[in-house]
Amino acid sequence: MKIAIDAMGGDNAPKEIVLGAMKAAAEFKDIHITLVGDESKIKEYLTSNERIEILHTDEVITPDDEPVRAVRRKKNASMVLAAQLVSDGKADACISAGNTGALMAAGLFVVGRIEGIERPALSPTLPTIGGEGFLLLDVGANVDAKPEHLLQYAIMGSIYTEKVRGVSNPRVGLLNIGTEEKKGNELAKNTFDLLKNADINFIGNVEARDLLEGAADVVVTDGFTGNMVLKTIEGTAVSVFKMLKTALTSSFKTKLAAAALKPDLYQLKSKLDYSEYGGAGLFGLKAPVIKAHGSSDATALFSAVRQTRDMVENNVAQTIKEAVEKEAEKTAIK
Amino acid sequence: MKIAIDAMGGDNAPKEIVLGAMKAAAEFKDIHITLVGDESKIKEYLTSNERIEILHTDEVITPDDEPVRAVRRKKNASMVLAAQLVSDGKADACISAGNTGALMAAGLFVVGRIEGIERPALSPTLPTIGGEGFLLLDVGANVDAKPEHLLQYAIMGSIYTEKVRGVSNPRVGLLNIGTEEKKGNELAKNTFDLLKNADINFIGNVEARDLLEGAADVVVTDGFTGNMVLKTIEGTAVSVFKMLKTALTSSFKTKLAAAALKPDLYQLKSKLDYSEYGGAGLFGLKAPVIKAHGSSDATALFSAVRQTRDMVENNVAQTIKEAVEKEAEKTAIK
Repeated sequence: MKIAIDAMGGDNAPKEIVLGAMKAAAEFKDIHITLVGDESKIKEYLTSNERIEILHTDEVITPDDEPVRAVRRKKNASMVLAAQLVSDGKADACISAGNTGALMAAGLFVVGRIEGIERPALSPTLPTIGGEGFLLLDVGANVDAKPEHLLQYAIMGSIYTEKVRGVSNPRVGLLNIGTEEKKGNELAKNTFDLLKNADINFIGNVEARDLLEGAADVVVTDGFTGNMVLKTIEGTAVSVFKMLKTALTSSFKTKLAAAALKPDLYQLKSKLDYSEYGGAGLFGLKAPVIKAHGSSDATALFSAVRQTRDMVENNVAQTIKEAVEKEAEKTAIK
Repeated sequence: MKIAIDAMGGDNAPKEIVLGAMKAAAEFKDIHITLVGDESKIKEYLTSNERIEILHTDEVITPDDEPVRAVRRKKNASMVLAAQLVSDGKADACISAGNTGALMAAGLFVVGRIEGIERPALSPTLPTIGGEGFLLLDVGANVDAKPEHLLQYAIMGSIYTEKVRGVSNPRVGLLNIGTEEKKGNELAKNTFDLLKNADINFIGNVEARDLLEGAADVVVTDGFTGNMVLKTIEGTAVSVFKMLKTALTSSFKTKLAAAALKPDLYQLKSKLDYSEYGGAGLFGLKAPVIKAHGSSDATALFSAVRQTRDMVENNVAQTIKEAVEKEAEKTAIK
């Protein structure tokens, strides 16, 4: 199995990307990695080239680049070349921790959609209190979604959760403002009817306040709402920890107590750190394209590689293709 | 000034409602309160009737009642009668901690919209790290909003924040998935253009992750997204505290340290408790209608009365009416 990695994407590139790639190559003997990026910079950190090769390029896409334009103009950017390797059949999947919008554009224009998939979905796995996590999709690939798109998200999310995360018969919930069937905006109401009749384990509407409690294994919503919920969870968790830190360092007494609690608080924070669950998959493309978190360290990148390997090994893209064809036939028969 | 209060609404009714009303009547010598509900139950807790009277009724709207139907059929429900007092000119404003949907329906059908306001907005004030709070609207009164509705929310929110919360020239932000002008779904993009030209201090798009940091004083969004963000903030804060509690009681050592931190942690939790900021106003109605949090205790109810009093005293409804007329003239002239 061959995995292409954008070595220049993310806040800690190329160092942490290279370290993570080496860790993955050492752990998984069945993978070959191509690191795409500035050869001399990559070599500063690359201490083993066992099943790792470098594809050199000077060009990079920056976080501030306008995504679509960047992908169209910077044909030799590390991220674009990584996607090109997939498109050319020289890699089975690719990973980047760089500009999210650009990776979505590269996935769409360079790797390409599965036939029958109307819109790809960006799909991170978020933490739950119990530690099992849930898949949220879409979080921003498609901000003006239609019910048919959300139906495809539900199918893709189910397949991924079953095949890669090992959850049998995953519970699919529709993110809504109430649990009752008739709740929500037009999009939610129309989506509900579609999901009810789909070949998935649809458990109905789920509310945003119950997500971290593990209300569902797969949570389906439009990209605008999903992006809001994702960023609200992040922002609230960060703010609460900030306030906690202020409270814990307000006096000598609290500082002393806080010192005793440090390992437990650290553990709590890492439990909420969703980079531990791997990257966000861009589902609906011909091959796995994985967005690792922008602040990825070597461990997060390693998790993303493991996740990508699982997706390739379990033929997620092919299974999605077949499921979507089946669903389309069902609709055609009606 | 006369304020009607639904004594039977909320998890802790009538006890905490009655206690809060008495506290408010004692504090604010210029208000008269009418408690609407079961007289014998109210009297169990009413130890002073100075400027407090009771309007007896047996009927109540329950949390499970279907809102619109309940308001139409239960004409003598405590919540509906409180709204009726406003409609009849016997009260200047009303408050309920009961069924949110029913209160919105009662506001719309019984109190009535300001002429020119297309859709009322449910508008809570949420906490920020710095303690200043921000107004979020709409959080669910209108789930399929148009750009014109969001423009009116921005105007109403500005007026409220300036007049009642004492923030001069409040910063109005549009909730969006990125800060750049061209970001977002169709609704967000079209709203951006309207807000740019309105007589408000529009600061552009704000992201969900920055809300608790105080990114804006007034945050405008459609009811579906607003409801999601509100519930995600609530749910994440609750989940983090739950995890914190588990971590802090995991061993003898942590329990000991946690005991020393208890007052600070409690303070932190109450800082995030938005009942301290009063209830959620239903803006755009002919008179103030305030939704107190369902779990309101006497202090929260007291805050809601203070907020209601400020809205009446500062003629918020009248000012909104004039501002909306002015905005309509501006559009007509173009």
